[in-house]
Amino acid sequence: MTKGVKIVTIGGGSSYTPELMEGFIKRYDELPIREIWLVDIEDGKEKLETVGTMAQRMWDASPYDVKVHLTLDRREALKDADFVTTQFRVGLLDARIKDERIPLSYGMVGQETNGAGGIFKAFRTIPVILDIVEDMKELCPNAWLINFTNPAGMVTDAVVRYGKWDKVLGLCNVPVGAMMAEPELIGKTLDELVYSFAGINHFHWHRVRDLQGNDVTGEIIEKMYSNDSGIPANIHDIPFFLDQVKQMNMIPCGYHRYYYRTEEMLNHMLEEYNDPAVGTRAQQVKQTEAELFELYKDPNLDHKPEQLSKRGGAHYSDAACETIASIYANKNTHIVVSTKNNGAVPDLPADTVVEVSAYIGAAGARPIAFGELPAAEKGWLQVMKNMEQVVEEAAVTGNYALALQAFTINPLIPSGETAKRVLDELLIAHKKYLPQFADKIAELEAAGVTVKDDIARELA
Amino acid sequence: MTKGVKIVTIGGGSSYTPELMEGFIKRYDELPIREIWLVDIEDGKEKLETVGTMAQRMWDASPYDVKVHLTLDRREALKDADFVTTQFRVGLLDARIKDERIPLSYGMVGQETNGAGGIFKAFRTIPVILDIVEDMKELCPNAWLINFTNPAGMVTDAVVRYGKWDKVLGLCNVPVGAMMAEPELIGKTLDELVYSFAGINHFHWHRVRDLQGNDVTGEIIEKMYSNDSGIPANIHDIPFFLDQVKQMNMIPCGYHRYYYRTEEMLNHMLEEYNDPAVGTRAQQVKQTEAELFELYKDPNLDHKPEQLSKRGGAHYSDAACETIASIYANKNTHIVVSTKNNGAVPDLPADTVVEVSAYIGAAGARPIAFGELPAAEKGWLQVMKNMEQVVEEAAVTGNYALALQAFTINPLIPSGETAKRVLDELLIAHKKYLPQFADKIAELEAAGVTVKDDIARELA
Amino acid sequence: MTKGVKIVTIGGGSSYTPELMEGFIKRYDELPIREIWLVDIEDGKEKLETVGTMAQRMWDASPYDVKVHLTLDRREALKDADFVTTQFRVGLLDARIKDERIPLSYGMVGQETNGAGGIFKAFRTIPVILDIVEDMKELCPNAWLINFTNPAGMVTDAVVRYGKWDKVLGLCNVPVGAMMAEPELIGKTLDELVYSFAGINHFHWHRVRDLQGNDVTGEIIEKMYSNDSGIPANIHDIPFFLDQVKQMNMIPCGYHRYYYRTEEMLNHMLEEYNDPAVGTRAQQVKQTEAELFELYKDPNLDHKPEQLSKRGGAHYSDAACETIASIYANKNTHIVVSTKNNGAVPDLPADTVVEVSAYIGAAGARPIAFGELPAAEKGWLQVMKNMEQVVEEAAVTGNYALALQAFTINPLIPSGETAKRVLDELLIAHKKYLPQFADKIAELEAAGVTVKDDIARELA
Amino acid sequence: MTKGVKIVTIGGGSSYTPELMEGFIKRYDELPIREIWLVDIEDGKEKLETVGTMAQRMWDASPYDVKVHLTLDRREALKDADFVTTQFRVGLLDARIKDERIPLSYGMVGQETNGAGGIFKAFRTIPVILDIVEDMKELCPNAWLINFTNPAGMVTDAVVRYGKWDKVLGLCNVPVGAMMAEPELIGKTLDELVYSFAGINHFHWHRVRDLQGNDVTGEIIEKMYSNDSGIPANIHDIPFFLDQVKQMNMIPCGYHRYYYRTEEMLNHMLEEYNDPAVGTRAQQVKQTEAELFELYKDPNLDHKPEQLSKRGGAHYSDAACETIASIYANKNTHIVVSTKNNGAVPDLPADTVVEVSAYIGAAGARPIAFGELPAAEKGWLQVMKNMEQVVEEAAVTGNYALALQAFTINPLIPSGETAKRVLDELLIAHKKYLPQFADKIAELEAAGVTVKDDIARELA
Repeated sequence: MTKGVKIVTIGGGSSYTPELMEGFIKRYDELPIREIWLVDIEDGKEKLETVGTMAQRMWDASPYDVKVHLTLDRREALKDADFVTTQFRVGLLDARIKDERIPLSYGMVGQETNGAGGIFKAFRTIPVILDIVEDMKELCPNAWLINFTNPAGMVTDAVVRYGKWDKVLGLCNVPVGAMMAEPELIGKTLDELVYSFAGINHFHWHRVRDLQGNDVTGEIIEKMYSNDSGIPANIHDIPFFLDQVKQMNMIPCGYHRYYYRTEEMLNHMLEEYNDPAVGTRAQQVKQTEAELFELYKDPNLDHKPEQLSKRGGAHYSDAACETIASIYANKNTHIVVSTKNNGAVPDLPADTVVEVSAYIGAAGARPIAFGELPAAEKGWLQVMKNMEQVVEEAAVTGNYALALQAFTINPLIPSGETAKRVLDELLIAHKKYLPQFADKIAELEAAGVTVKDDIARELA
Repeated sequence: MTKGVKIVTIGGGSSYTPELMEGFIKRYDELPIREIWLVDIEDGKEKLETVGTMAQRMWDASPYDVKVHLTLDRREALKDADFVTTQFRVGLLDARIKDERIPLSYGMVGQETNGAGGIFKAFRTIPVILDIVEDMKELCPNAWLINFTNPAGMVTDAVVRYGKWDKVLGLCNVPVGAMMAEPELIGKTLDELVYSFAGINHFHWHRVRDLQGNDVTGEIIEKMYSNDSGIPANIHDIPFFLDQVKQMNMIPCGYHRYYYRTEEMLNHMLEEYNDPAVGTRAQQVKQTEAELFELYKDPNLDHKPEQLSKRGGAHYSDAACETIASIYANKNTHIVVSTKNNGAVPDLPADTVVEVSAYIGAAGARPIAFGELPAAEKGWLQVMKNMEQVVEEAAVTGNYALALQAFTINPLIPSGETAKRVLDELLIAHKKYLPQFADKIAELEAAGVTVKDDIARELA
Repeated sequence: MTKGVKIVTIGGGSSYTPELMEGFIKRYDELPIREIWLVDIEDGKEKLETVGTMAQRMWDASPYDVKVHLTLDRREALKDADFVTTQFRVGLLDARIKDERIPLSYGMVGQETNGAGGIFKAFRTIPVILDIVEDMKELCPNAWLINFTNPAGMVTDAVVRYGKWDKVLGLCNVPVGAMMAEPELIGKTLDELVYSFAGINHFHWHRVRDLQGNDVTGEIIEKMYSNDSGIPANIHDIPFFLDQVKQMNMIPCGYHRYYYRTEEMLNHMLEEYNDPAVGTRAQQVKQTEAELFELYKDPNLDHKPEQLSKRGGAHYSDAACETIASIYANKNTHIVVSTKNNGAVPDLPADTVVEVSAYIGAAGARPIAFGELPAAEKGWLQVMKNMEQVVEEAAVTGNYALALQAFTINPLIPSGETAKRVLDELLIAHKKYLPQFADKIAELEAAGVTVKDDIARELA
Repeated sequence: MTKGVKIVTIGGGSSYTPELMEGFIKRYDELPIREIWLVDIEDGKEKLETVGTMAQRMWDASPYDVKVHLTLDRREALKDADFVTTQFRVGLLDARIKDERIPLSYGMVGQETNGAGGIFKAFRTIPVILDIVEDMKELCPNAWLINFTNPAGMVTDAVVRYGKWDKVLGLCNVPVGAMMAEPELIGKTLDELVYSFAGINHFHWHRVRDLQGNDVTGEIIEKMYSNDSGIPANIHDIPFFLDQVKQMNMIPCGYHRYYYRTEEMLNHMLEEYNDPAVGTRAQQVKQTEAELFELYKDPNLDHKPEQLSKRGGAHYSDAACETIASIYANKNTHIVVSTKNNGAVPDLPADTVVEVSAYIGAAGARPIAFGELPAAEKGWLQVMKNMEQVVEEAAVTGNYALALQAFTINPLIPSGETAKRVLDELLIAHKKYLPQFADKIAELEAAGVTVKDDIARELA
């Protein structure tokens, strides 16, 4: 790194890339980047060129001399990289539309990282990330992999367990959001509070203390309910039951709404699904993305446009930049990451990936030991982690029965014939990206299984 | 015990009592009973007299001189008891009807030991069993408590954890049924097979080996699916998915259908619920019971009538008799019981109650160490056990938020407003038997919450 | 096995073989043996022929037609075996003399299965047993391996962990001795008591209950101390401290004397070591063995001679026969064996080998879950098990630093320069049987390290 | 704390108090102290006045207006304290002389925190610290207890387990010493390295990484052995075996020498013990202390004298000041402390106290999850932690058999009659401070047990 840092971003054609560039530009003093390589695949070439050209404009408008390389050749890019960030989406937004619409067409939660959709995103993504890791072992064995491809927990766990690669951190913007929104509820700034997060990606809880060491979790909870606008909600805005949250004295994460308020979340999703004028989240995002790329084409645009902040994943890229800078400059910043447990969440095995408060510095993540969870949260966390491990094994082996096992124990999927049907339709719909399941898919096709939802069926 | 064994049966007015008597009579040589005390409460006095009189007739028709005492005074009965069996039902069958109909009225599984109904049966039963244990500490401190009141797992666990009473075994007829039905599927007798069960009550799995040490679990599974009649089904007869069961290479228990095939089980229950001519299981059982008690009144009936075998709990009482005889005569019989784990199921804490294969003898249960479960079953078992512990704590403390926590993580209850509504209606419906929740119930009544289902609402 | 059982005994030239034959003859009705293969190595050929000829005489004097084959070709013998028993001793008694005398020459415990000597017996034996397992995978993949080669715990654990062979049971005569000696102390027979053992080989404890379920461990302990002859002592007869044993309310095993009374045991061994007329245990045994083999040569001797019972390992072979018969005839006998934990001793990992009470039948061992040990015993057991795992890894890899680690944490070896010297001398002394440590041994020899003890040095 | 911080120091008459004052003075800007209360007992009154007067001189010479109160009334001092530090020594240095000389008189390690001596220091200290905690619950329920009374691990664990007080941190200067000495060995400063410690007090290991994330533990180890002066040695200077330390790739703590090199450490102690001109460590320290107090009497001395740095416990008090300042100012400093595990050392239970790297801030310690230790260290740590728990239980209950259990499993005490004799003599010698063992001591006295070592016997 003596000549400056080399960053490689897989999925560089993403609409988030400008946020990533902005994050790097503002941290240049502590993270002196030499070159950035944005990598994408053939299908994403046009977007890569649009956003990549804009990225170069952003650097050119900065005081720093950084070259942005655009390439479809991943191996060329990885050579001697210092940090590799992953923000790719296998199958693009069309795959996400299927992940959402197919379960919803049978009345089940259809979501990108939870339930049936999240399982299939893992099935598509894990084989690809493991390929990337194999390339890294050969081409940049000292690099850090900073993953923010979802489902970030399972993807990061697979990198450690199957890829045997420990220099990896998974990132998520959900904890960032909580720490941005909550302090002002009790008249504090983030600096005046001490946060402790524990769990797994999109399934964690946190507690908060003030500078006198007092637990102020309950106070924040009370304020959340007296002041609607304070609820951390980048998802549909349904409050947890106050009694319940007060009893556990921990604040669940936003995605926990799918679990604590399944009925209402499902109803909301079904409303959007059934209204052609609205559509599911991916359909909405697809529209937003198209608008963003129109903006990016403007040869005068040389900074992150305001509109990007309204896209759900805000702060994701900034968290990634902060993580990279913290490693590079040994900043020891408190960041919530997916990392090897090592005991931090004693209710889960020490060698599995968890999402916890950690101090990030030159040695990577130093996870903070949280201690045991109360019984209800412990049990729920354990079934979720085991479900994830079954998903990962199915993703690696293509074992259909394991996929069915994962569907069965997933709390958002009511078991039975319909669940099996949803599994089968998703397999067929994602055929192109699921070579490991090829035999089963062929069998299903031979049996005449087709996708019921019209929109999903007609996508490539 | 020098003058013969004293047996006390709490809930002695049950329709199962004749099976219990038959079991004792046929084992008299190894279990020389001196006296049997059947205990019941005021509301069950008539049934107690009917079935108690018949019990005495059964002994009189036997070669043995055993006196059957009938009493409403539990403490008198417990004095110097050697074995206490519990088969009482707090609130009688009417309470079960509520446990079933109220959840079903909102489209949720309504069942005696699973889902919302099972949680409420625990709420009603645990305070009573803890009272019994307090009496036993004083009146018969060396006695064994043989519990077959459902939900047997939670009730037995509460006896150990909250009652601090270790001389307790919980019994269930489900494993008995499996071991009776399966061997012939592969042309064997039970003596030619070695069974290993592990899990918790109504949520366990088993593996089978033959006398050459070969695992024949897969073979039994195959036969179950080629021969419909072989499926162990005292519940509605829906098969597990063959692929899935073969993959796990363990046979789930009958009650697992509620979890592996939630959709179909629920649909079946809703059909019965919606058909006034059929009604839910408790309504059917109430009819059967009435018929049984008519039979029992016949002064010439001095043996267990055939009709009793058709009642769902067949073999329950026989398993209890065999357990008692095995302890008394140190028979070292293989029986599946709810007992302190001690490590037998290493995926659960050593000090919690599990349901496992054990050898029963003078020292009580010697549980057989099963080893770790595969990931999917491990996670599921862990969430169920933690849910049970939350239920028990709620039952003991009357903490509403804990009740809501248990509802939320229970796999058969979709979380949200409707779940909360079901919880609230059940609290109101069972008011008489839930003094620990009195404050919350008063609050709900003040808020105007009433039971929607007509039949449930009109029961006392 | 349709034509009768084939037994193979590795180390068939052992002086114990007649006890093994006697055990098989008396169990012929339940274990119909067809042929027995006694296998030994070139160095043991003479003893093999002597004892093998006598073994055939024993069968000829019985009503059964069983052929005893003698061979130096292990692979020929293993072909299609049903049971393989291992009682070999790598390096014969001369190696044991070194294991005892070299530590004692530096004032440390010198013993066959404990301390430095036990570690070196493991170093010599584990590579050989792993070779045998490889042969078995090829030649008799359905056979059971019944190991009674010491150190039986580490050897059995290595078979499971490194050999990946689960059909193995390790046997020891120590629990047999306890169960033979103790009952009469309290006026009972073994049938009137229920024994529970837990720990690892030569480092386990037990509790006892009577047929009323009462814990009588304390009563047995009291009697042991009021009646000297009752102490289970096939080792030097030093009592445990009464206060201490009463407090723990468990009976340690005989070998525990090395740990609970290190000082006295060491002094006794040093006395024998320093008295040329006595010598260490192996020297005494060597004499006994010579006498036994003289007896065995008598062409008229066709039964086990009385003198064999005085050899320390009495009942070992009988326990092996009973184990084999219990598997073959699915007898479900209570036997204490080294087997995969599966949770039976929850203070140790589920996948490691422990020595516990188990029911032995067609499916092998069904270990009984013992529950957690008290703090002192738990900690001690954990360090011993971890020490064993370090020994096994050193035995497999030949890693000198791991050997030093094992020496350091072993409770019977005071750490420091002398311990290292003992390690180095033992390596040199056992050079012939430690190819895995060849490089280190060469280095030590080059540095001029030699064995100080004259007798040990002069042995081959 | 609005009017400034109130610090209370129990054992304020200690010779270390000037270092503590110096530490507070130099941190005044971040830790604005209002008043300091030095508390001692009647026997320490003279020293308290000497060192307390000097402490006030130090503050008077500083720019800050802080009042130092001297008192024998602990309860008066504790009222509304913000931080309570404990540096008391029950029985003063004379008790330490006994802890050292009595074991050494029988050829066993005699040391303040390890072996028999450490166990007895715990026996004397734990009841007193639990009394202090009871006072704190009443008089300063929001205060932090910063303990540096040895054995700091057991004392802190007892505060949590038996005192049910979580706001406690235990401190030790050993990690400070390592972090001061090691970096320059590899040409680095502490800021250029990332340290991770895990274990329990005086029995921990650490690993080190550089700012590129590389593990440099091995490099430091190599340098330690090529450069004698680099070895962290406030104890007698005996190196660990290089092979062994390289293999484990962790650096043991200084006190680990007693365990890894027992022989040499013992020999060194015996040399000093047997040389009247030298004496044991406590005898040497007593001399140093006398000299220090002579210095402190100088009315012109208003700063910490150079000589204090030569006392073994240098940096202890500074670590305490830094810890207090880090809590007060939420500094998030990396400090190695004894604190509740919470999973940081997954080889030990989550609810026990461990000594680990932690970030110290307003919420107290945030322990860093270290992950599992290698087998040898894991086993050793487990036996030590269990031994500590047995010691604590014996300290609280006065149970002699538990004391014997702790002696038996302690790796530095060879078990047997002599160990029991050492236990008995130590009980008698410390009679005044062991009221919980009064009955046993009376029994030993009646049996005529006396202390063999002349010097120890003649001390009060």
